Amino acid sequence: MQPIVLAQEEDRPHYDAVVPTESDPKELPGRSVWHVLIGRPLRTSEMSQEQITPVEGLSALSLDALTSVAYGPEAIIVVLALAGAKSLHLILPITLAIVALLAILVFSYRQVIDAYPGGGGAYAVSRANLGAGASLVAGAALIVDYTLTVSVSIAAGVGALTSAFPSLTPGTVPICLAILAIITVLNLRGLGASARAFLLPTLLFIVGLLAIIVVGLLHPLGLHEAQPGRSLLSTHGLQVVSVLLVLKAFSAGCSALTGVEAIANGVPLFRQPRVKRAKRTEVMLGLILGTMLLGLAVLARRWHVGPRSNQTVLSQIMGMAVGRHWAYYVVSLTITVVLALAANTSFGGLPILASLLARDDYLPHLFGLRGDRQVFNNGIWVLAILSGALLVAVGGNTNEMIPLFAIGVFTGFTLSQSGLVVHWWRTRPQRWRYRAVVNGGGALVTALATLVFLISKFEQGAWIVVITVPLFVLLFVRIRAYYARAGVELGIGSLPGKPVVKDTLVIVPVSNISELTKLAISEALSLSADVIAITVATDRADGAPDYSEELLREWSQWNPGPPLEILRTEFSSIVEPIVAFIDQERAKDDRQIVVLIPMVMPGRLRYRLLHNQIDLVLSAALRKRTDVVVARVQMPLEVPRRSRDQESSSGD
Amino acid sequence: MQPIVLAQEEDRPHYDAVVPTESDPKELPGRSVWHVLIGRPLRTSEMSQEQITPVEGLSALSLDALTSVAYGPEAIIVVLALAGAKSLHLILPITLAIVALLAILVFSYRQVIDAYPGGGGAYAVSRANLGAGASLVAGAALIVDYTLTVSVSIAAGVGALTSAFPSLTPGTVPICLAILAIITVLNLRGLGASARAFLLPTLLFIVGLLAIIVVGLLHPLGLHEAQPGRSLLSTHGLQVVSVLLVLKAFSAGCSALTGVEAIANGVPLFRQPRVKRAKRTEVMLGLILGTMLLGLAVLARRWHVGPRSNQTVLSQIMGMAVGRHWAYYVVSLTITVVLALAANTSFGGLPILASLLARDDYLPHLFGLRGDRQVFNNGIWVLAILSGALLVAVGGNTNEMIPLFAIGVFTGFTLSQSGLVVHWWRTRPQRWRYRAVVNGGGALVTALATLVFLISKFEQGAWIVVITVPLFVLLFVRIRAYYARAGVELGIGSLPGKPVVKDTLVIVPVSNISELTKLAISEALSLSADVIAITVATDRADGAPDYSEELLREWSQWNPGPPLEILRTEFSSIVEPIVAFIDQERAKDDRQIVVLIPMVMPGRLRYRLLHNQIDLVLSAALRKRTDVVVARVQMPLEVPRRSRDQESSSGD
Repeated sequence: MQPIVLAQEEDRPHYDAVVPTESDPKELPGRSVWHVLIGRPLRTSEMSQEQITPVEGLSALSLDALTSVAYGPEAIIVVLALAGAKSLHLILPITLAIVALLAILVFSYRQVIDAYPGGGGAYAVSRANLGAGASLVAGAALIVDYTLTVSVSIAAGVGALTSAFPSLTPGTVPICLAILAIITVLNLRGLGASARAFLLPTLLFIVGLLAIIVVGLLHPLGLHEAQPGRSLLSTHGLQVVSVLLVLKAFSAGCSALTGVEAIANGVPLFRQPRVKRAKRTEVMLGLILGTMLLGLAVLARRWHVGPRSNQTVLSQIMGMAVGRHWAYYVVSLTITVVLALAANTSFGGLPILASLLARDDYLPHLFGLRGDRQVFNNGIWVLAILSGALLVAVGGNTNEMIPLFAIGVFTGFTLSQSGLVVHWWRTRPQRWRYRAVVNGGGALVTALATLVFLISKFEQGAWIVVITVPLFVLLFVRIRAYYARAGVELGIGSLPGKPVVKDTLVIVPVSNISELTKLAISEALSLSADVIAITVATDRADGAPDYSEELLREWSQWNPGPPLEILRTEFSSIVEPIVAFIDQERAKDDRQIVVLIPMVMPGRLRYRLLHNQIDLVLSAALRKRTDVVVARVQMPLEVPRRSRDQESSSGD
Repeated sequence: MQPIVLAQEEDRPHYDAVVPTESDPKELPGRSVWHVLIGRPLRTSEMSQEQITPVEGLSALSLDALTSVAYGPEAIIVVLALAGAKSLHLILPITLAIVALLAILVFSYRQVIDAYPGGGGAYAVSRANLGAGASLVAGAALIVDYTLTVSVSIAAGVGALTSAFPSLTPGTVPICLAILAIITVLNLRGLGASARAFLLPTLLFIVGLLAIIVVGLLHPLGLHEAQPGRSLLSTHGLQVVSVLLVLKAFSAGCSALTGVEAIANGVPLFRQPRVKRAKRTEVMLGLILGTMLLGLAVLARRWHVGPRSNQTVLSQIMGMAVGRHWAYYVVSLTITVVLALAANTSFGGLPILASLLARDDYLPHLFGLRGDRQVFNNGIWVLAILSGALLVAVGGNTNEMIPLFAIGVFTGFTLSQSGLVVHWWRTRPQRWRYRAVVNGGGALVTALATLVFLISKFEQGAWIVVITVPLFVLLFVRIRAYYARAGVELGIGSLPGKPVVKDTLVIVPVSNISELTKLAISEALSLSADVIAITVATDRADGAPDYSEELLREWSQWNPGPPLEILRTEFSSIVEPIVAFIDQERAKDDRQIVVLIPMVMPGRLRYRLLHNQIDLVLSAALRKRTDVVVARVQMPLEVPRRSRDQESSSGD
C-alpha cells in the first residue's frame, strides 16, 4: 500500500497560453506546409481581421442571390413562352411582384438580424417561435440547400467555361474539384480571405451589369444587330394564359430570390457592430438585386425577348444593349466567375448553422469547435466533402438541380416569416399588427411558391428533397436523444462520489533488454511499486530459435527489480497471449491495471515502419477492456546520419 | 515520495495462453466477418493442416512452371520462323537442350532443398556461398520476378477469357482484381487452402495435356482438319540459320523453365518430413514438364507447326491431335484457368523470402511475423498490393511483360548454381568435382540465357528490371544500416544501468464534472499522490458563455482532492494550451509527467463521432514529447436503447 496524500488547492498562478511563435517551426513540423496555406493560428483578439464589412459581405454572402439574375428572368420567360409571344409582356408585372416579395424578405430578414444576432436565420427564428420541430425542418432544409448551392454554383460556372472552351470538357470534374478546393482553403483561412479575394469580380459584376442595363434603357447600342441562335417561341399548340400559368411563372422566377437569407444566417461573420453592418448589407443586396431584376424585366418587355437556342435571356439582353463587343464579353466572363464563386455563400452559412445545431445537441459537438483560424472548420470540411461527392456523383453536371435548392430556401423563408408573425404577436412592439400582416403575407406567398416548386418539379428531382429533409430531421432527433441518454449515464448535472484510490499493477511488455527496456521499467516503477514485465515466446513448429530462456537469464543478470514473466503460446499472434495475461490479472483482485507499452520513436517518420507497431495492435485489442489504463512510454531515437561503415552488426 | 519496494521474483506459475474459443464471439466483434473469410486462428500444432503434400505442391508451387508449356514452345517457333520453314525442324534439338537444362536445374534445386531447408532458394544459397552482395541481387531479382509473375499470370488468364467472351473486355481490370483478391484470401487462410482449391484444375490440366500428346503421337484424330488462322511463316527476306538465331531461340524457349525454382524457395510450406517431400515434388515437376515439352516438340516437328494468326502453337498441336472437339475445348479452358492460378506460385515464395530478408535485417521486421493462420501475412498483403497496383497501372494488359520476369528468374538460377559450385568446393562431398562441373555448366548456360534476354528485350522493357533490382538492393542495404545504428543507439547487446525511480505528476484534462471525471481522478490518484486537473477556457469574442468559473465553483464543492487549474487562451485550439502547460511543468523539475486522458467509450462504433476526440489530437501533439507518458482512461458507455422519451434534457 502506498500512502495517499491528497494535494491541497495551492495558489498556482493563473496560466497564460504559451504562443507557438513562427520562429519555432521545429515544434510543429507536420503542420508547416498546411499553415502556409491557411495561415498561422489567430488569437481571439485578431478575429476581427477575418470578419467582414458590409461591402465584403456582398462578395462573401450575397453572390448566391446576385447571380440569380442569370437564371431568374430566364425561368419566367421560359414558362410564359408556353403561351406564345403575346404573353411575354407579363414579365414586367410578374417581376414587380417578385421584387415586392424581395422587399418583404429584406424587411423580415432585417428584423431577424435584430432579433437573432447569433445567426442561423430560419433555424434560430423557428426554434424561438415555432418550436423544435419546425426549427429542425428549417435546419435540414438549409443544409440541403447549402450543399446543393455549392455543387450547382461551381458546376454552373464550369459549365459556362466549357461552353466557351469545349476542349476543357473532359476535365469538367477535376476543374470543379479544383475550384472547390480553392474555396475551401480560403474559407479555412477565414471568411475575410474569401471575401477580399472575391471582391474585385463581385464589384465588376455589379457595376458592369448595372451599366449595361442603364445603356440599354437610355441608348441601346446593339439592338439592331442580328441575335445568334434560333427563336424557341412555339407558335402552335399554345397554352392559354391562365392564372395557373402566371402562378407557375411567378414561382419559377422566385428562384431569383434564393440567397437572400444568407446574410441573416451568417451575422456572426460580420465585424462589430455586426447587427448594424449585417442589416446594411441586407439592404444593399435588396437594392442591387431589385434594380437588376426590374431593369432586366423592363428591357425584356421592351425588346420582346423570348427563349432562344444556345442563348440565355441575359446574354440576349446584354447583346442588344451594348452589342457583342468587349463590354459584353467582359461582363459575360465576370458572370461565369461569380457564378462559381457563389458557392462561397454556403461556406458562410452552413458552418454557423451546424455549430448552432451542435450547441443544441442536434449534431456532434465537434461542429461547435473553432479551428486555429477561429472558423468552424469541421463544418467547412463536411460541406466540402458532401458537395465534392455530389459533384463527382453527377459528373459535374448539376443543371437539373438548380430548381431543387429553391425548395430548401423557400421552406426556410416560409418558416422564418411565420416565426416572425409569432414573434410580433408575443412581443407586441410598435405597429406590431402591421408587421405581422406583412410577414404573414410573405409567409403565405413563399409557402405557395414552395408548393408550386414541389409539385411542378416533383418528378424531376424534388422528391429527393422530400426524402432528404425528413432523414436529416430524424438524424438530429436521434443525436439529441443519444446525448440526453449519455448525459444521464455520465451523471452530468449531479456531483459524483469521491474518487476511490486503488493499488496499481503496472504490466510492461518487453521483447529484449535495451535502453528502452530500462526507460520503461523506470517509468513503471515511478507509477507503482508493483510491476511485472512480460514477454511472449511463440512455439515455432518450423524450429526457429526460441530466445526466451536466454532473455530470462540476461534479465536475472541485469536484475532491475520487477520479475520477467514468459508467456508461452501455441498461436502466432503475440497480442493475444498478452491480452489473456492481462485478463487473468484483472480477474484476480481489484487492483488498477496499467499496461505500459514501450515504443521506439524514430526522428524520421519513414523509420516508423521499421519498428514493430505493437502499440497500435495492443491498444486496439485493449480498447474493450475499459478498466485497463493503456499508457505509452516512448524512447526518442535520433539515429545519426548514415556513415560509410554500413555493413556492421544487426540490431533492434 | 512514495516508498518503492521492488517486487521479488515470485514463483508465479508459467502462463498458458487462454485460447479465444469460437463460442466467445463478443470478445472480437470487428474480426468475426474476417475470420469467416480466412478461418479461425491456428495453433502451431495445427500448422500442418495448412502445410502441403507433394501432390498439393504441384498445384500450389508448380503451376508457374507447368503453364509455361503454353508459351515456351511458341517462343522457340516464333524465333525460328524468321529463317523460314526449313529451320522449324530445329525445335527438337533446341527443346532437347532445354530439357537437359531442366534436368540440371532439378538436380541443383534438389541439392538446394537439402542444404537450405529454410527456403529462400537463390537468396539462401548465394548468402551462404557468394556473400551478402550476391544474395541481395538474388533477393531483389526474385521480388521483381514474383510481382511480375502474379500480374502476368492473372492478366494472361483473363486475356484468354476475354478472347473467348469479348463482351467481358471492359471488365478486364475488375476481373483481374477479383481473381487477385480470391488468391490473396486463400493464401491468408494458408497455402494448404489454395493448394486444395487448385488441385482439381491442376490435375485436369496435367492429365488432359499428357493424354492429348499421347493421342497425337500414337493416332492423331484431327490432323487432316483445316486449321483456322493464316500462316505467319515469312517466305522472303529470310534470315540465315545462324548460331545467333539458334541461341536466341534457345533463350526464348528457356522461358518455359521459369517457376522451377519455386519449390526450393518454399520448402517450409511442406509438411514434415519437408525436405523429402519437397525433393519429391521437384522431381515430379521435372518429369511432367520435361515430358510435356519433349512431346510437344516431337509433334511440332512431325507436323511442321509454324506460327499462325490468332492461333497459339499449343492450340494448333492440340487441334491436330484430337480435333476441335470436346477434349480440345476442355483442355483449352483448363489451361486458361491454371494460367490465372499460376499467380499462386508467387504467394508461396515471396512471403518466405521477405521473412528471411527481415530476419537478416534487410526488410522491416514485421515481414517476419506470422499472422493468426501461421502465414507471413504482411508479405502476402504487400505482394497483393504491389501486383494489384501493377495490374491497374497497365490496365490488365501485361502480355509484353512475359519475357521480363524470365530475367529475374534466370538471375536467380545463375546465382544459385554458382553458389552450389562454391558449396561443393567447400564441403567436398562424394563426387564433388562432377557436381561442380554440372552446376558450373548450368550456371554458364543460364547466365548466357540471362544476357540474351537482357540484350534482346532491353528496349521492350528489360531496362525496368535493370533499374528496379539495384533500387531494391539499395533499399535492403539502407534498412540494414538503419537497424545496425538503431541497435547501437538502443544499447542492444549490453546490459543497461539500473532503472531510475522518479516522483510522478499526473495531469488530467477535464471538461466537466461527471462519472468520467471521477473515474479519471480515481485512476490518477492510484498512480500518484501528485495530481492536477486542468481545463481550458477559450476567450470567446462572440460572447459565447464561459463555463470555467462555474466549473471551478462546482469543483470546490465536489472537493475530490486534486486542484483544478483553469488555462486561459486567446486561441481557439484547446490542445495547444494543454501542451503549453505540460511543457511548463516539464521545465520545472525532474518529475515523471503522466498525462491521463479521460475518454468515453460508447458501446457502438457510430457513437464515437459524437464524443470529442481530444485523445487523438492530444496524443498526436504529445508524440514529440517523448518524456511524457500518455495514458488513456476509458469509461464504457452502454447507453440503453432509445426509448420513447427522447426529447428530454441534453448532456455530455
